[in-house]
Parts: sequence; structure tokens; C-alpha cells
Amino acid sequence: MSSSQHLALVDASSGMRRYAALANALRARVVAGEWPPGSALPSENLLAAEHQVALGTMRRALELLVEQGLIERIHGKGTFVRQGIAGGSMLRFFRFGGGGSEVPQSRIVQRQSVAATTAVARGLGVAPGEPVLRLLRLRLLAGQPCLLEEMWLPLDLFAPLTEGDPAGWDDLLYPMFARRCGVHVHRAVDQIGFGVLTAPQAAHLRLQASHPCVVVERSAYDLTGRCVEWRSTRGDAHAFHYQVTIT
Amino acid sequence: MSSSQHLALVDASSGMRRYAALANALRARVVAGEWPPGSALPSENLLAAEHQVALGTMRRALELLVEQGLIERIHGKGTFVRQGIAGGSMLRFFRFGGGGSEVPQSRIVQRQSVAATTAVARGLGVAPGEPVLRLLRLRLLAGQPCLLEEMWLPLDLFAPLTEGDPAGWDDLLYPMFARRCGVHVHRAVDQIGFGVLTAPQAAHLRLQASHPCVVVERSAYDLTGRCVEWRSTRGDAHAFHYQVTIT
Repeated sequence: MSSSQHLALVDASSGMRRYAALANALRARVVAGEWPPGSALPSENLLAAEHQVALGTMRRALELLVEQGLIERIHGKGTFVRQGIAGGSMLRFFRFGGGGSEVPQSRIVQRQSVAATTAVARGLGVAPGEPVLRLLRLRLLAGQPCLLEEMWLPLDLFAPLTEGDPAGWDDLLYPMFARRCGVHVHRAVDQIGFGVLTAPQAAHLRLQASHPCVVVERSAYDLTGRCVEWRSTRGDAHAFHYQVTIT
Repeated sequence: MSSSQHLALVDASSGMRRYAALANALRARVVAGEWPPGSALPSENLLAAEHQVALGTMRRALELLVEQGLIERIHGKGTFVRQGIAGGSMLRFFRFGGGGSEVPQSRIVQRQSVAATTAVARGLGVAPGEPVLRLLRLRLLAGQPCLLEEMWLPLDLFAPLTEGDPAGWDDLLYPMFARRCGVHVHRAVDQIGFGVLTAPQAAHLRLQASHPCVVVERSAYDLTGRCVEWRSTRGDAHAFHYQVTIT
């Protein structure tokens, strides 16, 4: 991409603040793959010269991208495109018995390619009927089931996960998504609510049907803002615990 | 306080990074009342000269205090001591029927001076038996009770609240704490969990005894780090909703 094209991207959005438009132009370069996740950005001086803006404007644009979580500054090293989030474990919403330091096991209970229902299509932002991969995953602590996760992934991105034995999958999914499918999850939104377990859900968690549960619905997004995962996680409401600090 | 005393505060903490010790010295000046909430700090150059440190060290110390929420930078205006948090309404954890823009009413149901029980003493960080003010407050939306809040305040700080008719109190408590009692809440930690309502709690909320509820336990702190409020808020679990974004 030439510097005149970069400039055009800035000028095109006349209604936007100059540095916000500039941030969008830089984001577009990241999304286009010019600087892959983990790579360093050129110096602020060089970027300012390329985009023909003042150094102060470029700094504000970069600050905005830091706030948005696209890039990060590492003191004394430079500015880098973020690798994506590691997971944001659902376990952070719960306190199960036995020390919190234990690594939970992961068991894929079901894996199937299905057509997206209306609800799944809305959650994933695809057309109803589109092929999606449905996974039912159980998380266990000390052999005891604690969380039941139902997740849907667009099949065009996640076809490699339809092959091989899921017993060999990593406990942390996002690094595996990146390695096997080239999908980097950069942002996730968790919506926490309350509900009761259906009989099949309760059976997986070794609880009674209609037992109170907390439901966490997650939408996860890649660099381009595409929704790449929709997930419902259920766990015993009595084990729910979350801390929020306000300053 | 002379500049040699400021310096002594820095040198005393030899194990700490220089700018972290400097941040503590600045915090001590704020806590001592040298710069009240809302006031502007002197320029970075002046502060650096007073503390006999490089400008870069002073900037890092100020950055740390911004991160800690003690001060804030207002673009083009300067650096200010924060006024404290406005409230962090418990309503952000719930979705009740009828548009979310409505201002909830507040009704003080009970107000009494009591001796701190063991649990209250632990929550507030005072000795058991210390005099505390107990408030039971109901929040209503469109005349419908939605949240029940039980709060405890150390009586030595909040004596002015034992006088007058609480019907005239503001719906937002923290600005009133500041105005009437000179207590600025600078940090609050909310612990969210699940429970069931006792019969008296349920009666206030017009629900059945043993109805599932979400319990938010809050500890609120002033500038010095003293716990100035301990509060339990209960609301219908079915109305619970909270969103967390990970980037």
C-alpha cells in the first residue's frame, strides 16, 4: 500500500477527528496483514512521515489503538501488534472447592457440523443455515465436572477442527485456534446472567434438573471485528463469584 | 512539609523502585490534605525540583498515581486530585423491566446506631463492638422495589447522618457522604455472588422467601485506604445481568 493510499483513507472520513481516522487507517494496515500479530510497528516518526501527519497526531492515533487493545507498548522495546487474548477463562467467574491454582481438565463431549439455527446465526452474525461447528465441552476440576460449555464456530474458519481426535486438543482453546486455524481472538464480550439447568445439562454437571446456574454468553471477535465464536457456559450458581473494582 | 522531608520519604524505601517510592511520597502529600480533592497539582517541573528527581522519574510516578486512580490528567488543563467515585451504582449489575434510563428512587427503611458484630467488624476493618451506623435502603424503579441494600458505616466518620430526616437524603450517597461528612470514596470493591432471600428480605422486595437472589458485597475505601463502608445489596437473580469485555 502506498503512502498516498494511506492518506486517502484519512481524508475519506471527513466527519471524524483526524487522529481517529488515522487510527482506522493504521488498523486497516494491521488487518491487511502488513504487520502480523506479535510484530513490531515502525517508529512513530516513520509512520508520521508515511501518513504525512504531525508526530503528535500519530501519537494520539497510536494511543487510541492501545486503548482499543489492537497494539501494545512494551517499555524500552517499542510498539507491537497484540497476539490476541489467551482465553479469559470462564473459571474466573466461579469459585469451586479445592485450591484455585489447579489447572482444569477439558473434555470435548460432542463435536458436530450443523446448520446454524436462527439463534446461533444471530449470535455468530452469519446467515441462518450456514454450516457451523458445534462443540460441547466439559471442564473438570479434580475429576469433578464444574462447567458445561456449548460453542459454535463458523465452519469456513474452523474446518481443521473437524479432523483428528479432540481428546488431543489443548485445554486452552484460543492458542490452538491460532495455531491450527490461523484465527486470533482479539476481543471477547461475556454477558453474565442467571438461569436453571435443563435435565441433559444437569446430567453432565452431576446436578439436579432445574438447579440454579449462572450462564455466561460469550461473543469473541478477530482483528477485523468478525465474530468467530459464540459460546454459552453454565455452572452451579452457588459457585458463582466475581469481583469488580471501581476507581 | 519541606522538600528535604519529601526527599527523606523517597530515600527511606530503599527496596522500592525510585518512582514507586516517589509516588508514595506524593500520595502522602495528597492524604495529608496539601492538595484537596478537585484541586490541581503543581507542574511536573516544579514537583521534580521539589523532590530533587529527574523530570522523567516524576512523570513515571505521576503515571502510577493515574493508574491507581488517585489523580487524573485533563487534556490541556493539567493534573488534578480526583474527586472520588460518584457511586458505581448497583443497578449496573441488573436489568429490570422498563427502560434503563430511569433514575431509581431511594428509600431509607431503617437507620440505627449499633455495635459492630464480628462479621461487620471484619467487613469494615474495625474492632467488634465499635459503634457503627446501620442503614437499610430500598431502591425502587417506577415504584417497584428492585434492590435491598444493608450498609454499615463507622460512626466516628458518619455522625452527621444520625441527625435529620433521611427522607431528604440524596439518591446518590457518595456525593452526600462528601458534602455532609467530608468522606470521599476513592475505591470500591464489589464481590458478586448468589444466594436466596430470607423472609424479611423477600418481603421488602415483594418476592417469596427463598427466592434466588444475587448478592453484591461492597467494601468502599477513602484516600488513605481506610474502609469507610461495607454494604450487601440483594436483587432478584433473574434480573441479574453483567457484561465483561476482554481485550
